[in-house]
Amino acid sequence: MAAQTVATNDTDTAGTDTAGAVDLGPASALSCRECGERFPLGPIFACEICFGPLEVAYDLPTGDPEGLRKQIEAGPDNIWRYAPLLPVPADVATKPNLNPGWTKLVKADNLARELGVTGGLFIKDDSGNPTHSFKDRVVAQALEAARAFGFTTLSCSSTGNLAGAVGAAAARAGFRSCVFIPHDLEQGKVVMAAVYGGDLVGIEGTYDDVNRFCSELIGDPLGEGWGFVNVNLRPYYGEGSKTLAYEICEQLGWQIPDQLVIPIASGSQLTKIDKGLQELIKLGLVEDKPYKIFGAQAEGCSPVSAAFKAGHDVVRPQKPNTIAKSLAIGNPADGPYVLDIARRTGGAVEDVNDEQVVDAIKLLARTEGIFAETAGGVTVGVTRKLIENGLLDPSLTTVVLNTGDGLKTLDAVAPTSGPSAVIKPSLDAFRSAGLAG
Amino acid sequence: MAAQTVATNDTDTAGTDTAGAVDLGPASALSCRECGERFPLGPIFACEICFGPLEVAYDLPTGDPEGLRKQIEAGPDNIWRYAPLLPVPADVATKPNLNPGWTKLVKADNLARELGVTGGLFIKDDSGNPTHSFKDRVVAQALEAARAFGFTTLSCSSTGNLAGAVGAAAARAGFRSCVFIPHDLEQGKVVMAAVYGGDLVGIEGTYDDVNRFCSELIGDPLGEGWGFVNVNLRPYYGEGSKTLAYEICEQLGWQIPDQLVIPIASGSQLTKIDKGLQELIKLGLVEDKPYKIFGAQAEGCSPVSAAFKAGHDVVRPQKPNTIAKSLAIGNPADGPYVLDIARRTGGAVEDVNDEQVVDAIKLLARTEGIFAETAGGVTVGVTRKLIENGLLDPSLTTVVLNTGDGLKTLDAVAPTSGPSAVIKPSLDAFRSAGLAG
Repeated sequence: MAAQTVATNDTDTAGTDTAGAVDLGPASALSCRECGERFPLGPIFACEICFGPLEVAYDLPTGDPEGLRKQIEAGPDNIWRYAPLLPVPADVATKPNLNPGWTKLVKADNLARELGVTGGLFIKDDSGNPTHSFKDRVVAQALEAARAFGFTTLSCSSTGNLAGAVGAAAARAGFRSCVFIPHDLEQGKVVMAAVYGGDLVGIEGTYDDVNRFCSELIGDPLGEGWGFVNVNLRPYYGEGSKTLAYEICEQLGWQIPDQLVIPIASGSQLTKIDKGLQELIKLGLVEDKPYKIFGAQAEGCSPVSAAFKAGHDVVRPQKPNTIAKSLAIGNPADGPYVLDIARRTGGAVEDVNDEQVVDAIKLLARTEGIFAETAGGVTVGVTRKLIENGLLDPSLTTVVLNTGDGLKTLDAVAPTSGPSAVIKPSLDAFRSAGLAG
Repeated sequence: MAAQTVATNDTDTAGTDTAGAVDLGPASALSCRECGERFPLGPIFACEICFGPLEVAYDLPTGDPEGLRKQIEAGPDNIWRYAPLLPVPADVATKPNLNPGWTKLVKADNLARELGVTGGLFIKDDSGNPTHSFKDRVVAQALEAARAFGFTTLSCSSTGNLAGAVGAAAARAGFRSCVFIPHDLEQGKVVMAAVYGGDLVGIEGTYDDVNRFCSELIGDPLGEGWGFVNVNLRPYYGEGSKTLAYEICEQLGWQIPDQLVIPIASGSQLTKIDKGLQELIKLGLVEDKPYKIFGAQAEGCSPVSAAFKAGHDVVRPQKPNTIAKSLAIGNPADGPYVLDIARRTGGAVEDVNDEQVVDAIKLLARTEGIFAETAGGVTVGVTRKLIENGLLDPSLTTVVLNTGDGLKTLDAVAPTSGPSAVIKPSLDAFRSAGLAG
């Protein structure tokens, strides 16, 4: 297929930059999301001119959407089917990688009935990824960037899920890993982060202290040769979330859903899903049609929801206090971009409280047999609330993201999930319990 | 494709039985594995003549292997791609079901290097199933049988994993579920079993007491309309394990691997994988070639391994005492069949102790980024032992099963999986820890 240079994004205004020696497939440059300045591909994350965040710009293959669609459909059952649209070399599927993605898009008819959705309700269930969260998608991208830049150690700051995803990916790819976590995490998360055999360092302090420490380490010779997936590799890392948009549309028969409900932590995932949808339209892989993007937060950490409701363009940081710990980022880097997308597409940002999160986890489990982590409770709970307050149209096709696995957040539902009865092993005892037939 | 009646198994000697009104696709009858007597398809599990176990017999489609292969390859990315070979109606994929299967077959090059395997080593990783164990495969079959027989409640006795799989499948399919567990299970397993909203009954007693109680309940009017997946639906349930054989061969390019290492609990999985391989050969979907099947047990529950080593045909029951609780069946129903298959194929049955199980879990995690449950530690540990004692040929293609997820057996590795260091958030502290570069 002939590859032509096209703008696929408002900030990708030219194909004039020449990429360095690194081969990251269609990725042509990094561009600043604020001022549009372009830089060669490299392990940098902030604009040298205005300090704005950098993102990957592409020369994407156009002119033959049908051929591209066929190429994708003939690809592997993982994110690498979309290699022509990602910052990875064309032969990425031959390299050792966890190969995440191509998770189930579940038609949730039982849940739809409970919520009154008539236009088709789907759960994109990312608990099916190798380490059971969407983090595998973003880490897989960061790993390929690390390989291209010659890094030999993969690292991150994490409160748990990301540490496990990095440890597992590094193990498969033959990288060393060294990840940093607050020293007082729950044992389960520590075990998941340590079991893959990389170095795990507990930092005496909060997650903010861990982050500050990692920033220092990147600037020091001690951190030489280290790829921090969510710091100096962040522009590549973030692109992994585009694959959620690609998969959802392909699984719907190459159609964009009318409405999407997406959780907000840093907000990166939501903005990249929007970017992915825009790319599919510009490439002619899907019909250009309106869609609405809804952001979901927990009430105990709802800075973007608060700004949306107040009509602000600026997000005021909050101190998180919620059971949805994987979404507990009080100062979300992509918050302003999320506000822009929700408003531009006619969506909204909403939040639910912890009790509603637990109710929604159990609702999803009871109706669809999907045991979601707290973040999935947030999106399902927010979907319900958006229908109740009239912001989400139940007669339209709606996709709700579940980004993680209930096994990792058992504490959320444990107090209210126990046996219906405890009985002696006799038919009389069972009859008395009133559970028969 | 024209469907002809053929024998696909030594006990399937004729197509003369007529199935009842139930539509279970190519399934034609139940046949006794001991005396060969045949019975119409129904919710029965023991031969009326000799009390032997019943299994499903088929009229399988032959005469056009290339057409069948193409049909399968064009099917869904789950076990229903093999619907023509399973006891399910042809339109099964349109019914609400968890749609398990089509899990990753991981080329384990790092692990191969550590173990000295040169002929190609693969992990069939069933932790990617909806509730993260192979149980989803067998429950999916039992559910379709329950639907065909008009049951409205799905039930089982379980020590945890199966309870979760049944609860989730029933929720998706709109069945009531009522599952029975020992009352003193770990909280995590109780939560997983209860979260799907079905009834969960704790029985004051051991797993044996739970089993006995369930057998009583099946014979009582209280249990009318109940499908116990691992009792009265067991013949159908067991067939789900055939899909592991189908997937492994298809993922290897329609080839049977030279060697397979399979865990033994009841032994059913191993015998059904052998059955599946034989079917593929008879259907002409794969080349007929020798293969060796190896069984893996934990030393603390190794009745089949002990019988194999002693040259016995009979399995003497043991009282289980091992961390591999999902394999802890002291009196395995299919033990004699396993012995027969291991001997007939030139394989073996071996066991490893708890320390070796933990080492193997960590070896697999460190080399391939796969966090297995204890049963996966058993198969990987046994593979290593079989290579060391010369029973498994490292120059041949070998597939090792991981049937479950490490998140469900965290306790096994927790004592030895912790941080490399805990430090203050400073570069000096990190330098002193000796973990840089």
